[in-house]
Amino acid sequence: MNATFEATSLLHTLFVIAIIAEAMTAALAAGKREMDWIGVCLLGCVTALGGGSMRDVLLDHHPLTWVAHPSYLLLTGGAALFTIAIARYMHKLRNIFLFLDAVGLVVFTVIGCNVAISLELPVVVVVASGMITGCAGGVLRDLLCNSIPLLFRAELYATVSIFTGLLYIGGLSLDWNHDGVMAIAMCSGLALRLLALRYGWSMPKFIYGGSIH
Amino acid sequence: MNATFEATSLLHTLFVIAIIAEAMTAALAAGKREMDWIGVCLLGCVTALGGGSMRDVLLDHHPLTWVAHPSYLLLTGGAALFTIAIARYMHKLRNIFLFLDAVGLVVFTVIGCNVAISLELPVVVVVASGMITGCAGGVLRDLLCNSIPLLFRAELYATVSIFTGLLYIGGLSLDWNHDGVMAIAMCSGLALRLLALRYGWSMPKFIYGGSIH
Amino acid sequence: MNATFEATSLLHTLFVIAIIAEAMTAALAAGKREMDWIGVCLLGCVTALGGGSMRDVLLDHHPLTWVAHPSYLLLTGGAALFTIAIARYMHKLRNIFLFLDAVGLVVFTVIGCNVAISLELPVVVVVASGMITGCAGGVLRDLLCNSIPLLFRAELYATVSIFTGLLYIGGLSLDWNHDGVMAIAMCSGLALRLLALRYGWSMPKFIYGGSIH
Repeated sequence: MNATFEATSLLHTLFVIAIIAEAMTAALAAGKREMDWIGVCLLGCVTALGGGSMRDVLLDHHPLTWVAHPSYLLLTGGAALFTIAIARYMHKLRNIFLFLDAVGLVVFTVIGCNVAISLELPVVVVVASGMITGCAGGVLRDLLCNSIPLLFRAELYATVSIFTGLLYIGGLSLDWNHDGVMAIAMCSGLALRLLALRYGWSMPKFIYGGSIH
Repeated sequence: MNATFEATSLLHTLFVIAIIAEAMTAALAAGKREMDWIGVCLLGCVTALGGGSMRDVLLDHHPLTWVAHPSYLLLTGGAALFTIAIARYMHKLRNIFLFLDAVGLVVFTVIGCNVAISLELPVVVVVASGMITGCAGGVLRDLLCNSIPLLFRAELYATVSIFTGLLYIGGLSLDWNHDGVMAIAMCSGLALRLLALRYGWSMPKFIYGGSIH
Repeated sequence: MNATFEATSLLHTLFVIAIIAEAMTAALAAGKREMDWIGVCLLGCVTALGGGSMRDVLLDHHPLTWVAHPSYLLLTGGAALFTIAIARYMHKLRNIFLFLDAVGLVVFTVIGCNVAISLELPVVVVVASGMITGCAGGVLRDLLCNSIPLLFRAELYATVSIFTGLLYIGGLSLDWNHDGVMAIAMCSGLALRLLALRYGWSMPKFIYGGSIH
């Protein structure tokens, strides 16, 4: 189950690109809410690093990524601030950021699965760990922006993460080549996400009009 | 302070019924907000298992329930999805679910107290642990639905949890029979909750019209 | 880097005053939302003790303050309830509470830095730990009141915490006298916060009108 050096290194590079992209899109969400520069900076950090932090807190996997590597705080906070400077060009980069966000989703998912696998947790928890890592940052962003998390309402997102995680853990359980499984899981997840974006695929909604409590 | 096997087993059965009921009422809350199926599923899991998870994270009591027993994730997620299928009949089951929610409140409270007792924590923390276990899942549900937690505004709920916890720890400190104390605490708490629902009892509200900061 | 007994004792006294003041202003925020007495009590506890709890959970620093010292739960909950009784006089005390809130901000910051220093964490994490301790309680309060955290939108607050933390860790790294560094950092931070309040200083806002996702 050991990744080769090249695959680990590629995953890490993609991780760094993904947290920068997440921090930058979070900065735009902050700008929508007219937050100040500190708010932009904090929302960038929380969105980019919050999913992994939530996973680590829930699984008791310490130290957290940003505690062990505080440079990620500076990197994501800095990326969020930089977004203020280039905000006027961001709409032209919209498709690039949608793509990077999708890359981040599958990269975070695989990293989250790996953490749970290294802790020898059961399969269901491995998939949950991947999903929390991939999705919880965006949930925290939406909570801090005072809106219902997009994750709960929108296009295939958590689904992509669960799909990627299942492919990954399924392939590994068949003792296939680790790097190959990782590549297939990530590419399949990425393809599903991009197709969902392209064709507006979404999960059916549950609409309930009755009284609850 | 050891529970008999039967009492432990009954508490566990009630726990499983309660998390299913919590997941199902959370699914209705999700339907009110027109969440998609994944959102329904996640909100069910978070509501049913979030209180215990918050307690365990705060008290450093690992592994979390759903990490040790991932079947609870499938059970609560599945119950939430099943609710979509039977949504049209749910209003007829309203009273049953109100009752099961009240049962869940006192069951979660006693389980939360037991965790803190097993960690040999002080009495105030034992009561707090019971209340967090009983109430925090609903707070998370309301936060994710973007509304002010009902807990902070509504009928006797946290109060019932504190009352149950105080009776339980009080009885135990008198060295009374464990199962008897547990039964009395849970039945008293359940009775208080049902009476509060029946007669619309509530805590007085604090209404402040001045400026704050 | 050891504080003298007097300085530690003064810091502790200021901490107790600050958590009482935080709980009381949180009670007013609860009153604005017409919460019931239990809600007032809980919001007081969460606001006053939530920042330290979040820090300790993220840094795996157990037991949490209120678990080790449950009297703080009673103190902050009691202070919040007491606020209901004296609510009509609170607007006259507005300036005192703004001052105490500013004191709390720098006191919490220094305490948070000390926790991270005792865990031998890197400088960036020390400053982040101070900021989380100083600011996260207010963020939790705003989330539970269903509003966008003030921290992300308003006057110099997180900035003051970062400034205080940087002065503190900077002075310590120069091997200056611990108590002197602490006094200078806290007084400078307090002065910056009070000046910001007096003259309405704020960070520039980032206003973004484009589409995000």
